[in-house]
Amino acid sequence: MSDSKWYGRAGESGEVISSTRVRLARNLKNLPFPDRAGREEKEQVVEKVRDALLNGNSVLANDVKFFDLTELSREEAVSLAERHLVSPEFIAEREGRALLLSSDESISIMINEEDHLRIQVLREGQALKEALETADRIDTLLSERLDYAYDREFGYLTQCPTNLGTGMRASLTLHLPGLTESGSMGRIAENLSKLGMTLRGAFGEGTKALGEMYQLSNQITLGLSEGQAVENLLSIAGQLIEQEKRLRKDLLSTAQWQDQIFRAAGILRTARLMPGEEATRLLSLVRLGLSEGKLKGVDLGAVNGLSVRVQPATLMVGAGRQMSPEDRDRLRADILRDTFQNISI
Amino acid sequence: MSDSKWYGRAGESGEVISSTRVRLARNLKNLPFPDRAGREEKEQVVEKVRDALLNGNSVLANDVKFFDLTELSREEAVSLAERHLVSPEFIAEREGRALLLSSDESISIMINEEDHLRIQVLREGQALKEALETADRIDTLLSERLDYAYDREFGYLTQCPTNLGTGMRASLTLHLPGLTESGSMGRIAENLSKLGMTLRGAFGEGTKALGEMYQLSNQITLGLSEGQAVENLLSIAGQLIEQEKRLRKDLLSTAQWQDQIFRAAGILRTARLMPGEEATRLLSLVRLGLSEGKLKGVDLGAVNGLSVRVQPATLMVGAGRQMSPEDRDRLRADILRDTFQNISI
Repeated sequence: MSDSKWYGRAGESGEVISSTRVRLARNLKNLPFPDRAGREEKEQVVEKVRDALLNGNSVLANDVKFFDLTELSREEAVSLAERHLVSPEFIAEREGRALLLSSDESISIMINEEDHLRIQVLREGQALKEALETADRIDTLLSERLDYAYDREFGYLTQCPTNLGTGMRASLTLHLPGLTESGSMGRIAENLSKLGMTLRGAFGEGTKALGEMYQLSNQITLGLSEGQAVENLLSIAGQLIEQEKRLRKDLLSTAQWQDQIFRAAGILRTARLMPGEEATRLLSLVRLGLSEGKLKGVDLGAVNGLSVRVQPATLMVGAGRQMSPEDRDRLRADILRDTFQNISI
Repeated sequence: MSDSKWYGRAGESGEVISSTRVRLARNLKNLPFPDRAGREEKEQVVEKVRDALLNGNSVLANDVKFFDLTELSREEAVSLAERHLVSPEFIAEREGRALLLSSDESISIMINEEDHLRIQVLREGQALKEALETADRIDTLLSERLDYAYDREFGYLTQCPTNLGTGMRASLTLHLPGLTESGSMGRIAENLSKLGMTLRGAFGEGTKALGEMYQLSNQITLGLSEGQAVENLLSIAGQLIEQEKRLRKDLLSTAQWQDQIFRAAGILRTARLMPGEEATRLLSLVRLGLSEGKLKGVDLGAVNGLSVRVQPATLMVGAGRQMSPEDRDRLRADILRDTFQNISI
């Protein structure tokens, strides 16, 4: 769980955009979609995809590891979801499912999730074009060795009609404490949905945005190229960043928010027990303080990395043992204290 | 409000006993008790007492200042009560009342409170005998120049019969987080009342002990000498200290209490707004941490001084201006941050 992982870094517009994700949904011709496939058919898919990627001399072939989901412990599987490498649905039923994962965890390919292939590229900060390019390169590589289900009219065929066409979903994870505090997130999300985009809480249930983290993604995959979809997202993200930055200035001019930000740093530096939800709340405040120059001494990338590393299952995988909730709260506090020991307060 | 005041220091058994108070109730012969006295009679008392103390060559005469209560601002008057130099009742109705106060504020004489004179000596830590000696010396000095109301059978005559006899009330302010957490304070207070002693929350209403601070005092003033009363208090205080220290060891071995103590230090070092009640709660935790060696870098005397200096009216008197509650929360946070900047966390 070192900083060699993509999520331990901060990228372009990192003060608002914590990460970028592009995923492509693909299916193989002449084989039923996973939810209608039997065990043998699923195993065929796994074998075909694995061979297509690993039996070759590509850079990717040397960097990617194959995981049979049934061979992972419960914690390892849950940790994959905590690291956003797989969907929660993917690990709920692991029979016949497999994962291909690059060493820095920025490329993950789920096999037999909703579709045969879910090619996913993750990057720190705003990196939509770069991520799309990487996804395209993998897609091209695979398409040379696999027969994709493709229709001239509908494009790539997918289990769910909302993915037909490009099969591409691109998203940005945005930290929006200013817009959240202003109370305008509901209205903005409504307007964006009319433009074919979705804006919702990145973590937590429904519209509740834990840590003021939101996910902005395209909804339209039919009749719009991948490049156009990405351009639309970039344009909207630019507007959101501008509004967010203006609102943050207002927030941070108040004693109440300064108080909250410095207290958060003080608590992260001192607590001996740290529940997960509190960590998320405090990391959001410290992220805001670091982004706007109120706090110093810790890299934004370290905060990005922490928000992954202190998740319950990932903590246990890191420690290499089962832990009680209190043990986890203690280890979480230790890791946070260690990272924040040099924060200016 | 510098540390030249008695309350900016820590004394004997300071880890549990924050301060000692001895007060003597005295009345002048041939003048009605204050609640039956007219304005002129009260003024006579004020004049007699002032002259008795200030017209002379005693060390005290040079060190003590006279204050006509009606000439103080509201904040100055309330601050006197916050510093425990006068009772809240004393400033509620200021006509005909005066105060004599030594420069380190360890000696205060209220004139025309419930009795004509309330001679009060305050000291840091456990200093019952020293405080009693000082009170006696002042009492002797005054008795040479004033005619006290004294009865061979009842001793010093006082407005309230519970003070008849010695007119002495001695008390210790105790910090008892261990005993509070153990839930045995109610039982202990009940047992002590049978022994003629009172144990109750030092601040706050009723039995609620803000900051886990309690006041232990003698109740019996008739048929028991001052020295005996002090010996009884010392004996009980010794037992309470022993129990408290044992319980603190148990508390501080738990992750929950370590967490609370270090968080308190972290928040005091970082907060930009600090409400009064929260300050009391956090100072109690930091006091515990410093006393037991979990925290370092700040003197216990500084914590004693702070708990007085950050009171609302005392804050305003120190700043020399009227302040809104938010302004006070800000100044309180600034003062606390300043004091705790070198605390080990």
